[in-house]
Amino acid sequence: MFTGLSAFPLTPMNEQGIREDEFACLVARLAAARVDSIGVLGSTGSYMYLSREERARVLRLAMENAGDVPVIAGIGALSTREVLALAEDAQKAGVAGVLLAPVSYQKLTDDEVFGHFKTVCESLQVPLCVYDNPGTTHFAFSDELHGRIAQLPSVKSIKIPPVSLEPGAAEARIQRLRELIPADVTLGISGDPAAAVGLNVGCQAWYSVLGGLFPERALAITRAAQGGDTQTALRLSSQLEPLWALYREYGGSLRVIATVAEVLGDVSRPSLPQPLTTLQGDARKKVEQVVEQLK
Amino acid sequence: MFTGLSAFPLTPMNEQGIREDEFACLVARLAAARVDSIGVLGSTGSYMYLSREERARVLRLAMENAGDVPVIAGIGALSTREVLALAEDAQKAGVAGVLLAPVSYQKLTDDEVFGHFKTVCESLQVPLCVYDNPGTTHFAFSDELHGRIAQLPSVKSIKIPPVSLEPGAAEARIQRLRELIPADVTLGISGDPAAAVGLNVGCQAWYSVLGGLFPERALAITRAAQGGDTQTALRLSSQLEPLWALYREYGGSLRVIATVAEVLGDVSRPSLPQPLTTLQGDARKKVEQVVEQLK
Repeated sequence: MFTGLSAFPLTPMNEQGIREDEFACLVARLAAARVDSIGVLGSTGSYMYLSREERARVLRLAMENAGDVPVIAGIGALSTREVLALAEDAQKAGVAGVLLAPVSYQKLTDDEVFGHFKTVCESLQVPLCVYDNPGTTHFAFSDELHGRIAQLPSVKSIKIPPVSLEPGAAEARIQRLRELIPADVTLGISGDPAAAVGLNVGCQAWYSVLGGLFPERALAITRAAQGGDTQTALRLSSQLEPLWALYREYGGSLRVIATVAEVLGDVSRPSLPQPLTTLQGDARKKVEQVVEQLK
Repeated sequence: MFTGLSAFPLTPMNEQGIREDEFACLVARLAAARVDSIGVLGSTGSYMYLSREERARVLRLAMENAGDVPVIAGIGALSTREVLALAEDAQKAGVAGVLLAPVSYQKLTDDEVFGHFKTVCESLQVPLCVYDNPGTTHFAFSDELHGRIAQLPSVKSIKIPPVSLEPGAAEARIQRLRELIPADVTLGISGDPAAAVGLNVGCQAWYSVLGGLFPERALAITRAAQGGDTQTALRLSSQLEPLWALYREYGGSLRVIATVAEVLGDVSRPSLPQPLTTLQGDARKKVEQVVEQLK
């Protein structure tokens, strides 16, 4: 399940709550496109900004609309207690796997993060993907810690931060990590602009923001790389360079992809939980131009 | 209210919940010592690891045990919606003021942080202290943004990160900020090791971790500085150098002060919410030695 294209939809919302119809449509579209899995309540799904009840509602809507495509759910929270509660909710809803990031307020030690994953794994009947995203969690995994955590029986994948766009350096990075983790634990790339390179050098999965809104484009890149057609994967990714440029300019993928979804009418405006805002003014005009180019 | 010594108690807890008796004792001790205010649900009070219900319980216990000492409550959360709910709870409980940090998961822009404070201030009937703590919030205030936010009518104080221990540099820092904010907005120092210097160069408040457990020691430093006896303030602070050394070695004040409280028997062990842990092994032995020295 932690292989191929895992597509991460937005959770469209305003200050009154989740826009359930819009979320259901996003999930149904991913199922129709036949992505390999649907990753709800990831960073793109604003999981950290939702209440436990809202997350449970998202899980139910995802299960109702995903057809036979496996659903993976983010269960991250600051306290171990809360993660255990969220893991229970996700398993009750029937997810196929969970995604856990060591979200921090107080800076965490390696031993604290290991203890956190160990406690959570002991409560799980479904496999877990370790979510390594230092930009949002402010925790930097050492390779050694990845090795320790990957020995836990529930751990079956690691979602790694973007690799270098230089294939040699990217391959060396994957090799180094691969040597420290069990063979049945997959490595999945995140950071859409690095996905083609990551898949080409041996990542078995792409945890994809792009795929949550443009599943066909993300699938084309994924299938090319999986078939060994590295050049096609790179070419298809480079066609999206105007989008990658927006990610670089506006602090990552979330605000850009949410603005694109608003521009396309897939979600109502506003679509992000305050204090987060989609792009406005000149930035929004740039997004509109890129959307036109990509059509 | 946002002047003098504001003492921040721990919220002793285990995985089952808050140890209410121990928290009540900590608060009552601060009231008996006549600190100038009690800051509950700060970073030292593990606010980000508590549920809304637990925070409401902490507020009630604080109000019941603080006597006539003003209570300030942290209301920070990731989403603006949640902060508004917590502000309502705090005001209903009867707090004298609130403390708000721009806690982040997605990196925030200046405009988003301004909008967050503006929305919250519009819901407040009590004054607010801006909590600038980049080590935990991962948001770095510019001086210009401090100036903008300090114009909001509810804002009456800024809790700033540690200043330089070099008095000239510390004074220049305070002067620069002072020029950008209204005269009725106080500046309060945080980071215990920098408190004496900060008070000596013009900070009107000390938001104090030390004061939450050792109110008499923190009051002695504060009163010396307030009386213009800069040398005594520095001397009393330097007597605590073994404690400051522990803060430096173990990633800040929280784990150290919680371990000290456990060693002294003021709180039961464990006292922090998982995944956070107090110091164990050799680190704990060092804490025990420092506790002996300070007696």
